[in-house]
Amino acid sequence: MASSRYDRAITVFSPDGHLFQVEYAQEAVKKGHTVIGVRGKNCVAFAVEKKTISTLHVDRTVTKIYPIDENITVAFSGLSADARVLINRIRVECQSQRLTYADVPSTEVISRFIANYKQDYTQKIGRRPFGVSLLIAGFDDDGTPHLYKTDPSGTYHEWKACVVGKNDKSVMEFLEKKLSKNENFEYNEDDTIKLAIMSMCEHVQAKSEKMEIVIMGKKKFHVSFYFI
Amino acid sequence: MASSRYDRAITVFSPDGHLFQVEYAQEAVKKGHTVIGVRGKNCVAFAVEKKTISTLHVDRTVTKIYPIDENITVAFSGLSADARVLINRIRVECQSQRLTYADVPSTEVISRFIANYKQDYTQKIGRRPFGVSLLIAGFDDDGTPHLYKTDPSGTYHEWKACVVGKNDKSVMEFLEKKLSKNENFEYNEDDTIKLAIMSMCEHVQAKSEKMEIVIMGKKKFHVSFYFI
Amino acid sequence: MASSRYDRAITVFSPDGHLFQVEYAQEAVKKGHTVIGVRGKNCVAFAVEKKTISTLHVDRTVTKIYPIDENITVAFSGLSADARVLINRIRVECQSQRLTYADVPSTEVISRFIANYKQDYTQKIGRRPFGVSLLIAGFDDDGTPHLYKTDPSGTYHEWKACVVGKNDKSVMEFLEKKLSKNENFEYNEDDTIKLAIMSMCEHVQAKSEKMEIVIMGKKKFHVSFYFI
Amino acid sequence: MASSRYDRAITVFSPDGHLFQVEYAQEAVKKGHTVIGVRGKNCVAFAVEKKTISTLHVDRTVTKIYPIDENITVAFSGLSADARVLINRIRVECQSQRLTYADVPSTEVISRFIANYKQDYTQKIGRRPFGVSLLIAGFDDDGTPHLYKTDPSGTYHEWKACVVGKNDKSVMEFLEKKLSKNENFEYNEDDTIKLAIMSMCEHVQAKSEKMEIVIMGKKKFHVSFYFI
Amino acid sequence: MASSRYDRAITVFSPDGHLFQVEYAQEAVKKGHTVIGVRGKNCVAFAVEKKTISTLHVDRTVTKIYPIDENITVAFSGLSADARVLINRIRVECQSQRLTYADVPSTEVISRFIANYKQDYTQKIGRRPFGVSLLIAGFDDDGTPHLYKTDPSGTYHEWKACVVGKNDKSVMEFLEKKLSKNENFEYNEDDTIKLAIMSMCEHVQAKSEKMEIVIMGKKKFHVSFYFI
Amino acid sequence: MASSRYDRAITVFSPDGHLFQVEYAQEAVKKGHTVIGVRGKNCVAFAVEKKTISTLHVDRTVTKIYPIDENITVAFSGLSADARVLINRIRVECQSQRLTYADVPSTEVISRFIANYKQDYTQKIGRRPFGVSLLIAGFDDDGTPHLYKTDPSGTYHEWKACVVGKNDKSVMEFLEKKLSKNENFEYNEDDTIKLAIMSMCEHVQAKSEKMEIVIMGKKKFHVSFYFI
Amino acid sequence: MASSRYDRAITVFSPDGHLFQVEYAQEAVKKGHTVIGVRGKNCVAFAVEKKTISTLHVDRTVTKIYPIDENITVAFSGLSADARVLINRIRVECQSQRLTYADVPSTEVISRFIANYKQDYTQKIGRRPFGVSLLIAGFDDDGTPHLYKTDPSGTYHEWKACVVGKNDKSVMEFLEKKLSKNENFEYNEDDTIKLAIMSMCEHVQAKSEKMEIVIMGKKKFHVSFYFI
Repeated sequence: MASSRYDRAITVFSPDGHLFQVEYAQEAVKKGHTVIGVRGKNCVAFAVEKKTISTLHVDRTVTKIYPIDENITVAFSGLSADARVLINRIRVECQSQRLTYADVPSTEVISRFIANYKQDYTQKIGRRPFGVSLLIAGFDDDGTPHLYKTDPSGTYHEWKACVVGKNDKSVMEFLEKKLSKNENFEYNEDDTIKLAIMSMCEHVQAKSEKMEIVIMGKKKFHVSFYFI
Repeated sequence: MASSRYDRAITVFSPDGHLFQVEYAQEAVKKGHTVIGVRGKNCVAFAVEKKTISTLHVDRTVTKIYPIDENITVAFSGLSADARVLINRIRVECQSQRLTYADVPSTEVISRFIANYKQDYTQKIGRRPFGVSLLIAGFDDDGTPHLYKTDPSGTYHEWKACVVGKNDKSVMEFLEKKLSKNENFEYNEDDTIKLAIMSMCEHVQAKSEKMEIVIMGKKKFHVSFYFI
Repeated sequence: MASSRYDRAITVFSPDGHLFQVEYAQEAVKKGHTVIGVRGKNCVAFAVEKKTISTLHVDRTVTKIYPIDENITVAFSGLSADARVLINRIRVECQSQRLTYADVPSTEVISRFIANYKQDYTQKIGRRPFGVSLLIAGFDDDGTPHLYKTDPSGTYHEWKACVVGKNDKSVMEFLEKKLSKNENFEYNEDDTIKLAIMSMCEHVQAKSEKMEIVIMGKKKFHVSFYFI
Repeated sequence: MASSRYDRAITVFSPDGHLFQVEYAQEAVKKGHTVIGVRGKNCVAFAVEKKTISTLHVDRTVTKIYPIDENITVAFSGLSADARVLINRIRVECQSQRLTYADVPSTEVISRFIANYKQDYTQKIGRRPFGVSLLIAGFDDDGTPHLYKTDPSGTYHEWKACVVGKNDKSVMEFLEKKLSKNENFEYNEDDTIKLAIMSMCEHVQAKSEKMEIVIMGKKKFHVSFYFI
Repeated sequence: MASSRYDRAITVFSPDGHLFQVEYAQEAVKKGHTVIGVRGKNCVAFAVEKKTISTLHVDRTVTKIYPIDENITVAFSGLSADARVLINRIRVECQSQRLTYADVPSTEVISRFIANYKQDYTQKIGRRPFGVSLLIAGFDDDGTPHLYKTDPSGTYHEWKACVVGKNDKSVMEFLEKKLSKNENFEYNEDDTIKLAIMSMCEHVQAKSEKMEIVIMGKKKFHVSFYFI
Repeated sequence: MASSRYDRAITVFSPDGHLFQVEYAQEAVKKGHTVIGVRGKNCVAFAVEKKTISTLHVDRTVTKIYPIDENITVAFSGLSADARVLINRIRVECQSQRLTYADVPSTEVISRFIANYKQDYTQKIGRRPFGVSLLIAGFDDDGTPHLYKTDPSGTYHEWKACVVGKNDKSVMEFLEKKLSKNENFEYNEDDTIKLAIMSMCEHVQAKSEKMEIVIMGKKKFHVSFYFI
Repeated sequence: MASSRYDRAITVFSPDGHLFQVEYAQEAVKKGHTVIGVRGKNCVAFAVEKKTISTLHVDRTVTKIYPIDENITVAFSGLSADARVLINRIRVECQSQRLTYADVPSTEVISRFIANYKQDYTQKIGRRPFGVSLLIAGFDDDGTPHLYKTDPSGTYHEWKACVVGKNDKSVMEFLEKKLSKNENFEYNEDDTIKLAIMSMCEHVQAKSEKMEIVIMGKKKFHVSFYFI
């Protein structure tokens, strides 16, 4: 009850230093579809839970995975309208950087851009934070794959494997257990996909559902649907 | 009662990650007239419930179905004043895209435009969300028909058949049952219309009322009124 | 009591999808003078209740009926200051359309303009809705008479006969009963006026009062006062 | 108590369609000095109650009656600071209309201008309504005298005789009784003044006070002070 | 307690037509130093109470009396920071009017300017009223002395003698008694000063304090300090 | 408790004429370090309490005394971040006046500038008052030293000796007692410093602490640290 | 509970002179990672606690230490999104000063810039304060090392050794004890690093965690990771 005093109108600090509007936005993300990203030796794999809303739904338009540029792809969990608007902005930024530097931006540059863009919505008046977390997969000029994550607060970090959305805790623990065995793991494409699918299947308990798998190789972007 | 703390003044997150103003706008849609859209092999059919407010009403001006461009038509449920303003904006966008690209926009481009436009009203201060859901029917360059739906939150998806407004749940279940039998159904015009009318009659229980039927073929737009 | 939480400061949705400020504005209209409009074969008649505030009042300045252009006339019920400001805006729009299209605007174009203008006041911050409903009578190029109604929410519809203000329900029922007998009624001027006066007399029970009658023919605008 | 919820910050509708801020402004007018206006055959007379605040007061600067243009004079009741600012604005408008049309504006044009100006302060955010009612006396081109009244809501009407401020009800009844006897009364100057003075004396019960009398003839503006 | 609902954020009307913020500003004036102004035949005298805050204070900088132009002087009571800002504005206005009209403005013109400037702060959003009352003394072209008073509401009046600040009621009564004896009093300079000093001494009961006396003759401005 | 109703959001008047936000800012000043200023015959001395926050602190950067121009120095108590921003503004003003008038501004001109700048933050919306009091020491063209004080309300006065911050009351009484003995005291530099140090030592009871002493002569600015 | 009245919407003073929003932001800093800075003879060392969020985390992107210019480095504790935005701003300022003055800015100039930038967010409406404290290490032209600290209130001070974030009190006491023994300590690089590491190990009790060590020499910037 007491907390409700600090979360109205604009994003302000609570007495113990919290930004409640940002934390509530993270709740919206926690209610979203489970999205898993795994970085292999020379690929990044996304696995996204696809709940069939209705048999009348045309699945093609319900993707949670968007290509941004030829070397960058993002997957999100949270409010899909917010995500779409944010992704539009990222695409424009990519093109703008290409024009300015005559080169594609690196994955970190784009991740930082997104994070800064989100932070602005947590400090200035008149806008709520974005209710969406993004996984950003990309290849840098040297051909190394990267996997970044940003959340509504505007932080961003690189991960070897990461999960956002529903059941993120249990999936994360599964991934940590699996990967701790081979400390500097360098999975090839098949193993990377396998791990992503396994994580999804074990912990989401949505066996009757479809999932969407995207495997991103260096100059390759491949989408497949698996029925579990 | 507790929820009422998060829904005033502007659209902010509640502690469990909800945007109440958006959900309340969806309530306004749920109170609207039932609007059914069915996509056939080479047509899209709309059926709209028409409650006779008064015998003195001139029905012609109470349409819930608006042509947007030669290849796109929308039907809505919710606040009709909001819908009209939104539809004006879509028409302008269509003309603008024609001027820019010298081509009619695809159904998805327009659906995304509407969804982005609506999302903006859920994040920035000083405006309430639109209290209206739209069904967008259109033909793309390759002659395939499409049926999209957007709601007040700013999401959009493609559907084989869809319903918004009052009794949306029961009509949806009826449609799913009917269509599940022939999985990749490819109805011709007559069957498409028949299905739309059947759905309306079965579940709206407004037998004494009129309904408005619009059948949209590739280069054809036909309106008929059926008395049930 | 609960409702009072959603109606302050700006026009936002209540949990069940209502816009209270708009509904309160409609209450203001319901408290206004009774205004009856009836569309005949080639005329529209307005009957307006005139309560004598004081014998010292100069009636001429208390009109509820305003000519807009040579083919359009409006009558209103609700806050007269709001109405006047709105009517000024309509007159400017008429002249503007004449300049742009070198033609008088049709009744529907003007009705839609008013409705859009009102809708804007229900969605943007910093302005209350207009507390006024308008009946718009007009002749289109083909000489057919039309009668439109807009209310504070920004909807507009065409009617064969319509009433706004006090006792609108009972007068409406009277009109529906009268007109249902001859379904496609085509009253001449005298019958149209007679019906408007009868409706007013029967149900307003303001026998000792004056009423103002305006009959609008194709190129004719005539005002008369009847003492009941 | 309940009403207090709808009157803060900006002028919004209450559940039963009232604009409380406007009604409170009218309360401020009801607390002001009694101002009586009577229209004769070819003159308008104002009688204004003058309470002696202090014997040290220089009466000349406490007038409630201001000449606007050579053919228009206003008297007010309510907040005198608001009135002064409003009157400044009217004078500027008069000069502006003279420049635009090379003619003095008619009394009604100016009354409508004032009313529109006031209405704006009841609908837009960030300003309170004007706490002042004006009586506007003027002569039109044809030499006929007119007497208009505007109140804080932005309405305006013409009157044969009118009163604003303290005791407005009882004075009004007195005037109605007096004038009802000769229905289309055409008082000359002397009778007009006499009536204004009588109304003031009978009902204001401020016998020991002064009153200010202004008689406005066609090209004549005369101020006199009467000690009652 | 009830009143506290109408005085926050901006200056709005209370249900009985009060502007509380303005009245609270007048309270701030009532807490200020007593300032007395008396108009003689060809002079105006100000007497200002000077409480010694501390023996370390340099009195020169604590004046409540400011010359504005060669013919105008003001004295104030209330918040001294507000007064200083207001006086800066008046001085600029005086110079501006000199440039525009090549003449010094009359006392009334300046008094009205101040009053209008103050009124603006009682009606528009985002500013509190000025917490200061001014006595304005001046000589017009014809050499007659004038004494005006403005208060936080934006009213202004001329006075023969006037007092603002602490004990204003009792001093006012003393002045009225003294001056009523010679109705059209025409004091010379000495008598005017004497009256101002007497009023201060009798009723302020600050016998051990200093007071500041300013006597303003036609082309003369003289300041003296009297120890009571 | 009641007071808490008037101090939120913006600086408005309380029912008894207080500006609470300004008074709260003065509380912030009262919590600041004790700063003593004493004006001698041809010098001004500042003594500032220096509490050792930590032995790791570099004292040089914790000064409460800032030179503004070659003839003006200020010392402050209160929020040091506010003070720094304000002092930046003063320095710019000094340079601006030098450019405009080709001369250094007098101490009073600068003091008034600061006071006006502060007053603005107590009347306009969207900014809190400055939580800082300044002592301004300066030499005018004629070589006389001056000592001014401004507080958060925007008032300014000249003092022979003055103190702001913690224990201001008791130090003030000590200074008054000391200086009352030689009414028109004309201390030389040594005595001025001695008095400043004595006042600090006697009443601040911070014997184990350091203090910072600044003595400002006509063309001389000297800082020394004394360990008490 | 009472305090909660003063901390909403914007940063205003509480009755006892506090700015709660600023203090809450400082709470956010107190929850951040422990960051220790120690200034040696010709170096500055930072030690930053690194909690392993997950074994899947790529540590490289979770740095709390950012180089700003060739002579300046900052470390922060608090909200990392806020810090990143602030650091971007500092880098731009450094480049701007280089362009303007053709020289690198000194450490104090940059520290003051940061502090002023932060102060602005504590006084103007519509923005919350930055929830971040910075340690700024730099070398000036004369080759001397400096260590500054700024906090959310916008103050800045120089320190010989300093700590922000969790456990700041106990670490500070440890540092004071250690350094008090050799009052004017002039540690070489090795001793400086050793002290930073010791402080971290003793008091953070995070023995199983990694820490990040940065040693900044005059033209040298070296990062090392130590596993405790």
